[in-house]
Amino acid sequence: MCEMKDQPVQIFLDELASKQATPGGGSAAALMGAQAAALISMVCNLTIGKPKYAAVEADMQALLTSAEQLRTTLTGMIKTDIEVFDKLMSSYALPKTTDAEKALRSAQIQEVLKEATQVPLDCAKACAKTLALSRIAAEKGNAGVISDAGVALMSAYSGLKSAALNVYINAASLKDREFAEAKLAELQELSLDVETEVASIYALVKERL
Amino acid sequence: MCEMKDQPVQIFLDELASKQATPGGGSAAALMGAQAAALISMVCNLTIGKPKYAAVEADMQALLTSAEQLRTTLTGMIKTDIEVFDKLMSSYALPKTTDAEKALRSAQIQEVLKEATQVPLDCAKACAKTLALSRIAAEKGNAGVISDAGVALMSAYSGLKSAALNVYINAASLKDREFAEAKLAELQELSLDVETEVASIYALVKERL
Repeated sequence: MCEMKDQPVQIFLDELASKQATPGGGSAAALMGAQAAALISMVCNLTIGKPKYAAVEADMQALLTSAEQLRTTLTGMIKTDIEVFDKLMSSYALPKTTDAEKALRSAQIQEVLKEATQVPLDCAKACAKTLALSRIAAEKGNAGVISDAGVALMSAYSGLKSAALNVYINAASLKDREFAEAKLAELQELSLDVETEVASIYALVKERL
Repeated sequence: MCEMKDQPVQIFLDELASKQATPGGGSAAALMGAQAAALISMVCNLTIGKPKYAAVEADMQALLTSAEQLRTTLTGMIKTDIEVFDKLMSSYALPKTTDAEKALRSAQIQEVLKEATQVPLDCAKACAKTLALSRIAAEKGNAGVISDAGVALMSAYSGLKSAALNVYINAASLKDREFAEAKLAELQELSLDVETEVASIYALVKERL
């Protein structure tokens, strides 16, 4: 099957809108994160080599490397989200007639639910890292394309808040409460004061427009 | 040339990240809006026809129609943003040796700047409408896919705040201050209390997860 990232944008949107379960919000969150990273790279690519920005050249090179790594990770997550969701659906579809079947099915669901909690948590983490990078782009990037740093910020923030919803859902169904609470605590850590940080970076971008 | 929406997602991201000026943040904003509308349609498509949600069937049908209209509009804006940006760049590239050339160039730039203010304002408006629809999806949609209403919300919000940045930039360069102030006032109207509304719909989604 053709991977989602290799499908035309229009097809991605059509499949998102359809009644098929995947792609869904998890893939959309990963795409927003990837888009944020791409926009940070754009700011870097339009800053590097400009004499006016020679003083931040090394910072922009380092930022570009980090942004491109995150872009690769987040683009890959468009697919990972689909895979783990399909795996979860297959687990729910396992036979549940005998007690042995019920026990096997339940164990399988719980195992996949752990993965289905970790995958969006990893997406939220990558989005949080991308959001942090958008501050560097906003502070040091070419003022002529600084709005793109602001769009990167909003896209990363949206990806983070979107991925968080999938962590909440799947963590809620986990019987291993210790695992679930640990994952929710990690998410909480990422989300701490994020609205204040977003407002601060957005204001910085507006000042430099 | 192949329209951006017909390019693979990966190519869109690669071109976003590149040093080419387009596609940039304006197209990214439109895509986030289109994605939000698509996710609202997904919630509708997975609610319509379910006996449990028969009471909201008509509401979901109406919501689906509105969301699909907005999706078409916003998907079209991915291209419109590129077109108006390219037009603006062509205006700046006009000859400016003689006084007559300078006057013609300046007039042309000012004319295109009006369009380059209106295009992202229209995108922000469509995103604001989509954001409002996400509340209906969050309130009445199938609880099994309610997180997708939350992702739609965040995507629409991000599209709105991103498009706003392009309105600010281009309005700032306009000599017709009356036009510029009118457009900024329209944008202000859209953004009024939007953070409170986003927090309220997000909380509603979390409650229904």
